[in-house]
Amino acid sequence: MSTVAKPVNSVTPSNRSTMRALVKHHAGPGLKFVADRPRPTPGPRDVLIRVLKAGICGTDRHIWEWDAWAAGRIPVGIVTGHEFVGIVEGIGSAVTRCTVGTRVSAEGHITAGTDFNSRTGNAHIASDTRILGIDRDGIFAEYVTVPEENVWPVHESIPDKVAAVLDPLGNAVHTVMAAGVSAKSVLITGTGIIGLMAVTVAKAAGAGRIFTTDMDPRRRALALKLGASEAFDPRGNDWVDEVRKTCRGEGVDVLLEMSGSSAAYDQGFSALRNGGTAALLGIPAKPPTFNITQHVVFKGATVLGINGRKMFETWYQMEELLIGGRLELDDIITHEFPLEQYEKAHETMISGEGIKVVMSIADR
Amino acid sequence: MSTVAKPVNSVTPSNRSTMRALVKHHAGPGLKFVADRPRPTPGPRDVLIRVLKAGICGTDRHIWEWDAWAAGRIPVGIVTGHEFVGIVEGIGSAVTRCTVGTRVSAEGHITAGTDFNSRTGNAHIASDTRILGIDRDGIFAEYVTVPEENVWPVHESIPDKVAAVLDPLGNAVHTVMAAGVSAKSVLITGTGIIGLMAVTVAKAAGAGRIFTTDMDPRRRALALKLGASEAFDPRGNDWVDEVRKTCRGEGVDVLLEMSGSSAAYDQGFSALRNGGTAALLGIPAKPPTFNITQHVVFKGATVLGINGRKMFETWYQMEELLIGGRLELDDIITHEFPLEQYEKAHETMISGEGIKVVMSIADR
Amino acid sequence: MSTVAKPVNSVTPSNRSTMRALVKHHAGPGLKFVADRPRPTPGPRDVLIRVLKAGICGTDRHIWEWDAWAAGRIPVGIVTGHEFVGIVEGIGSAVTRCTVGTRVSAEGHITAGTDFNSRTGNAHIASDTRILGIDRDGIFAEYVTVPEENVWPVHESIPDKVAAVLDPLGNAVHTVMAAGVSAKSVLITGTGIIGLMAVTVAKAAGAGRIFTTDMDPRRRALALKLGASEAFDPRGNDWVDEVRKTCRGEGVDVLLEMSGSSAAYDQGFSALRNGGTAALLGIPAKPPTFNITQHVVFKGATVLGINGRKMFETWYQMEELLIGGRLELDDIITHEFPLEQYEKAHETMISGEGIKVVMSIADR
Amino acid sequence: MSTVAKPVNSVTPSNRSTMRALVKHHAGPGLKFVADRPRPTPGPRDVLIRVLKAGICGTDRHIWEWDAWAAGRIPVGIVTGHEFVGIVEGIGSAVTRCTVGTRVSAEGHITAGTDFNSRTGNAHIASDTRILGIDRDGIFAEYVTVPEENVWPVHESIPDKVAAVLDPLGNAVHTVMAAGVSAKSVLITGTGIIGLMAVTVAKAAGAGRIFTTDMDPRRRALALKLGASEAFDPRGNDWVDEVRKTCRGEGVDVLLEMSGSSAAYDQGFSALRNGGTAALLGIPAKPPTFNITQHVVFKGATVLGINGRKMFETWYQMEELLIGGRLELDDIITHEFPLEQYEKAHETMISGEGIKVVMSIADR
Repeated sequence: MSTVAKPVNSVTPSNRSTMRALVKHHAGPGLKFVADRPRPTPGPRDVLIRVLKAGICGTDRHIWEWDAWAAGRIPVGIVTGHEFVGIVEGIGSAVTRCTVGTRVSAEGHITAGTDFNSRTGNAHIASDTRILGIDRDGIFAEYVTVPEENVWPVHESIPDKVAAVLDPLGNAVHTVMAAGVSAKSVLITGTGIIGLMAVTVAKAAGAGRIFTTDMDPRRRALALKLGASEAFDPRGNDWVDEVRKTCRGEGVDVLLEMSGSSAAYDQGFSALRNGGTAALLGIPAKPPTFNITQHVVFKGATVLGINGRKMFETWYQMEELLIGGRLELDDIITHEFPLEQYEKAHETMISGEGIKVVMSIADR
Repeated sequence: MSTVAKPVNSVTPSNRSTMRALVKHHAGPGLKFVADRPRPTPGPRDVLIRVLKAGICGTDRHIWEWDAWAAGRIPVGIVTGHEFVGIVEGIGSAVTRCTVGTRVSAEGHITAGTDFNSRTGNAHIASDTRILGIDRDGIFAEYVTVPEENVWPVHESIPDKVAAVLDPLGNAVHTVMAAGVSAKSVLITGTGIIGLMAVTVAKAAGAGRIFTTDMDPRRRALALKLGASEAFDPRGNDWVDEVRKTCRGEGVDVLLEMSGSSAAYDQGFSALRNGGTAALLGIPAKPPTFNITQHVVFKGATVLGINGRKMFETWYQMEELLIGGRLELDDIITHEFPLEQYEKAHETMISGEGIKVVMSIADR
Repeated sequence: MSTVAKPVNSVTPSNRSTMRALVKHHAGPGLKFVADRPRPTPGPRDVLIRVLKAGICGTDRHIWEWDAWAAGRIPVGIVTGHEFVGIVEGIGSAVTRCTVGTRVSAEGHITAGTDFNSRTGNAHIASDTRILGIDRDGIFAEYVTVPEENVWPVHESIPDKVAAVLDPLGNAVHTVMAAGVSAKSVLITGTGIIGLMAVTVAKAAGAGRIFTTDMDPRRRALALKLGASEAFDPRGNDWVDEVRKTCRGEGVDVLLEMSGSSAAYDQGFSALRNGGTAALLGIPAKPPTFNITQHVVFKGATVLGINGRKMFETWYQMEELLIGGRLELDDIITHEFPLEQYEKAHETMISGEGIKVVMSIADR
Repeated sequence: MSTVAKPVNSVTPSNRSTMRALVKHHAGPGLKFVADRPRPTPGPRDVLIRVLKAGICGTDRHIWEWDAWAAGRIPVGIVTGHEFVGIVEGIGSAVTRCTVGTRVSAEGHITAGTDFNSRTGNAHIASDTRILGIDRDGIFAEYVTVPEENVWPVHESIPDKVAAVLDPLGNAVHTVMAAGVSAKSVLITGTGIIGLMAVTVAKAAGAGRIFTTDMDPRRRALALKLGASEAFDPRGNDWVDEVRKTCRGEGVDVLLEMSGSSAAYDQGFSALRNGGTAALLGIPAKPPTFNITQHVVFKGATVLGINGRKMFETWYQMEELLIGGRLELDDIITHEFPLEQYEKAHETMISGEGIKVVMSIADR
């Protein structure tokens, strides 16, 4: 009677009931490696995934360092991490959309599915979102369970190490696609991990000239390599004048704010033309002093708040760009360590020596 | 561990195992009333709904008359009907989003939820859609089961007889909202049931002038009552010139094609201004001879194919218009009959004596 | 050889070379009535218009009161005013688009027409805009000249007193249409002149429920009369909770900010649902303290800066709503005085006794 | 060289009063070279341009061959041609936006500027359009006059031979940008001149995979070189199945129809996914038999008629892509001949030996 796919028997192929995992073991810095974390069991609508590789996010850095945000949000005792690729190893009794053996990633924003945004293609900003590895057990572990709605089958052409970072890549894709860069000039303020991803994504998604800013000369060099027309040191305002001048004396069409810095807000909006679009992804440590009257009202600007990734429009866009061979990620995913070297992995990411750092948890 | 609402025990409060229903009993005209149809049982993800009222759709007329389309599509033996309001009486073991006792309608397009459109807020055009009362048992019966994703809780301010026709009203709302009528002039070609709904919806949704066509003088009179500026008899082309002349000599901003007539295609597109938008809902009996080069390419027109209702953006839009008191449906829902008078109900609808005809199946 | 209309001879039918006008005669409060202002002569591309009626704008109040903004912007000696209706009385030698005798209003934003926005339908935010009655002689006078591109022929069905206020009505229409209110719930913070216009415009343009705020009980009463569902006193935050609760516990779809108050920013964005749209028209006296991270980034909100009116999309939208009889302006245009009573006219507007005040300058 | 206003005295620096030109000298095939065509004089709002290079359009082929369309449209005696680059040599007395000496191209669609589309950024589909080289003297000549509104200053980084073909390149850019290809899969049916341009434009503008069709193997090879993922021979339908299969079994996101063939309509729409977008540029010799019900209504597709280029949004988009170095045109602009070799130039284009053929009319 139902149109949906036949559920497969719920199976967990391995007999071990425990697993290796990184746990936020205390209300302070660091994580703890444990070898005997109980393996999770999928509920009726959940999928059990064996994790192959996991990326370390900027959020994971906050959790590692246990800053004010982390102390106020993260429950001590959980497994952290949310960027990953794995293999479906078991499904709940009512699961209809996933099959065992499929290579998958998953969207980490989990919602009940009953609010306006969840029912209109915008579950990423649902009012009841809980996030994997932040509000509940995440993926720095051999196994994780997620609701079947959140599972994303990974196209065969995408390598594991890229599949492990679809979550942050999705942040970049969502920001770029929300703003709309096709045949437009673009300024990206801040080229950290997601800012650098945004350079290659913006180029792939059709930007004309791409201008970037970063105080770190290595990141400026990498931005240029990935397709930026010019990469500025944001100290001083000469570069703002230069950008405006080269863009008909009017300014860029699109601003992608990825630094969370008050200065970048001021400079970025100054470099934006009247009627331009700004997409804001960066999260300031404290609210930016921001003259919205001057920068938005008088300019007739459009400002887009960016949070997460569209579920699942962004994932399809990202897949198409990857299948089409349009993205260059090799210089962004700089390091890979086994899970047991998690301390080195985190240090490499935090020091800035690495950009995107991936941990290998299991082989296929 | 899951964030979703706690499932309620699966219950079906009444002990009777059969129900009254209208069945497509043979490959020919009419339906048959039966009193002993087995009551459906919800699967793990389904909801069991006790039906209160049901609307008779134009599609139901095709099924009743057993035309070529019906003969090729409808499985003999099913319960038909898909427009309704009811009360949740039971839920499957894995249901998390519905609770027993809620008054609900439901979207009749059922999909596996795995294709692009289902995962991006456009499940109404999913590639694997099966439709209630067409491909599987429908709602001309005391009970029906539908997947929980399809259930729509009805706002307390909406009366039962309106809640029974949210499905066709949703066709009108989707057509109007897809085209975008706010502060625009609108031409509606064909004011049958959905065309008349489109008049009140277009006015509520912000149209300036609304022009309509219909060969039936009673429907033209009703169109005027519902907010049309002028209601034309489409025979002859003088009215096309008049519409163009009154719209700056250029034509209307928006065409809503709701007749499925080749002549209406030609006239409607002739009345549309360069750069205008046409939304096509009407389904021609045979493909319209349509000069797409003249009417679309040279004009720089936008044409939107309309199928079903957006799941669930349209439902939210409809709810807002209804709560805001913007729609006038009293003159459109003309008749109500008990289920047992289903023959009279269908005849009233088919003869054109009634417009939207509702059948009462049970009391609250 | 040219496709354009034949130019009419440049004529100014009356022989008088002077005219009555209101002049910003000194760097201080008030205006001065003069009877012998030299009548302007149209340049080759200009149109000479005999002014019939003029509206007094909030901007004219700033100029009257000579606040800091006015002192820094307005050249002493100019004729002020920019909202008006009149009759074309003469055209420059190269004018092709206007004919003598036409009843017209005009868009007050004047640009060279060479920048990006001017060439893409967004001249209202051109980088080189100069404004009638602010940067150059305006329309509180018997005659004014404007470039032919700025002239707007007024539809015969629109009365003079309405035609005199198309400029501020256009602000309301642009704000409402930019946000998109069709089938959406709307909150308007601040119902001064343009806020009240926005109530009738939002209802006409298709809003479902409309919530408003104002500290003045008379304006709240008028908002309700014009179509608001509820009109709140913004002091206290209970109303924010009430709005969120009645909108599915999530908040309104659209915020139209028309007060320029920091408190309204905070309350308005708090009442906005995740993924909602805010259009900002109000101009704060000083930059609002505004937590853009909380209110925009995390919410995934869209924020639109609103300045002027689209040239000329807004004018067409306004015309369609007016021709369609969708707007109620009688209660908003409260007073009319002859030009010579300009002091009383300004006082009536400034005291709040009147809402929109119009001055009659000449008869047809 | 600057684009900014500064009106210069109206001058025509050379004393000769005649010029070389190609004239449609009789109602039959071919053009005639004349050396003594009177040089045009700019009207008060016109600009006189000395032509450097001109492209030969598919439309010029129709005029050359004198087919039914040409015989019904082209006035015998006019100078033809509309794709060009030149230098401003004189301006009319009322011109304010152009200066002598500027290198320019021009939009060939000329309108009075008074209708809806002209006043809202869509002058390309104005109701009163007259076209350069079709309805009035064109640019296969040493000199041409056009209204100043139509002039486009060419960015210094763009070479003359590219600047000469901005008009057809603009057709490709408008088609691609109207459809929106960013992060989408795209099918281009027909890779003639504009279809090939559309390949490089679609890649630059952000398409993922690009599929093309053409019966000519050389054009398929060139499509692949320009960025197509696969280039199919459209004979047979296997390729449609293959495209659908590789695009999730659902079909491409975007169809760009550039062939004007009925078969391409059927195949292209069959290859389009539900909810996809089709932009139609190709002009069928006779109206395509096209099942709009199946291909548009049931699919929920969006269809965009494409005519000309947006004035001037498309020109800005094109400029940004060119400045950003995103377009590859060297393999598309295959031949260049002096004006006197116009017969060879036309033959090279008509035979298919050349793709885009340019004629040199004067040196800088």
